[in-house]
Amino acid sequence: MSCVFCAIVAGQAPAIRIYEDDGYLAFLDIRPFTRGHTLVVPKQHSVDLTDTPAETLAGMLTIGQRIAKAARATELADATNIGINDGRAAFQTVFHIHLHVLLRRNGDKLSVAKGLVLRRDPDREATGQILRDALAQLRASPQD
Amino acid sequence: MSCVFCAIVAGQAPAIRIYEDDGYLAFLDIRPFTRGHTLVVPKQHSVDLTDTPAETLAGMLTIGQRIAKAARATELADATNIGINDGRAAFQTVFHIHLHVLLRRNGDKLSVAKGLVLRRDPDREATGQILRDALAQLRASPQD
Repeated sequence: MSCVFCAIVAGQAPAIRIYEDDGYLAFLDIRPFTRGHTLVVPKQHSVDLTDTPAETLAGMLTIGQRIAKAARATELADATNIGINDGRAAFQTVFHIHLHVLLRRNGDKLSVAKGLVLRRDPDREATGQILRDALAQLRASPQD
Repeated sequence: MSCVFCAIVAGQAPAIRIYEDDGYLAFLDIRPFTRGHTLVVPKQHSVDLTDTPAETLAGMLTIGQRIAKAARATELADATNIGINDGRAAFQTVFHIHLHVLLRRNGDKLSVAKGLVLRRDPDREATGQILRDALAQLRASPQD
């Protein structure tokens, strides 16, 4: 099986499971950024935001929210970063869509944002127009 | 109005709007990490994952997905990072829940993950048990 998350779903690769139902599985990230760093995946393979149904994403986020709320009630988390890396340029490394639930504690040493280069947009109005046009285009295409 | 995102929703503070419907507004982040960095907010004020209804989160993510797909069809994005910073320790700075849609391009200089300290968990099984117990606790409480 070439997809490691499909292998985990099928029970053919090991994982510490946090939550499971008919459609989804949540398990500890094998390379955690913090203790309790969890991934939520749909059992049905899809790649990223371009091919995953909106209902599937909604289901992933509902579970992520429950894990975040549950974790906040423990010593593991005061806060959480919830995120999807959608595509290679966004650091997606496993091409089976997954939601990160990154548990954060007050005073932890993580600096998710510090490495970022702040880039000023020379023409924000033009940027806004590009995105509005692209959304209108998406609405006009029947398959989306 | 003390919440800047409520002020934007009400038209009392400026923003470059990307998308709007009855329940949600998307606009360019005033401090973008990349060109086209967009925020999706519910019009109804809520703070974070602890008080935002799951249906509202699903609606936010559906819009975020559409923006991500639309952006990927333009020169602005090859990929996207989608995320919610849930709580102060997770770098939430505006306490009106918002979904980041961070547009990424191949070869951009962002290093979201590089600043992160990788922390090995000395007892992953125990961590998993804490989270499973906390989820069971959450399920047992009638208000969630």
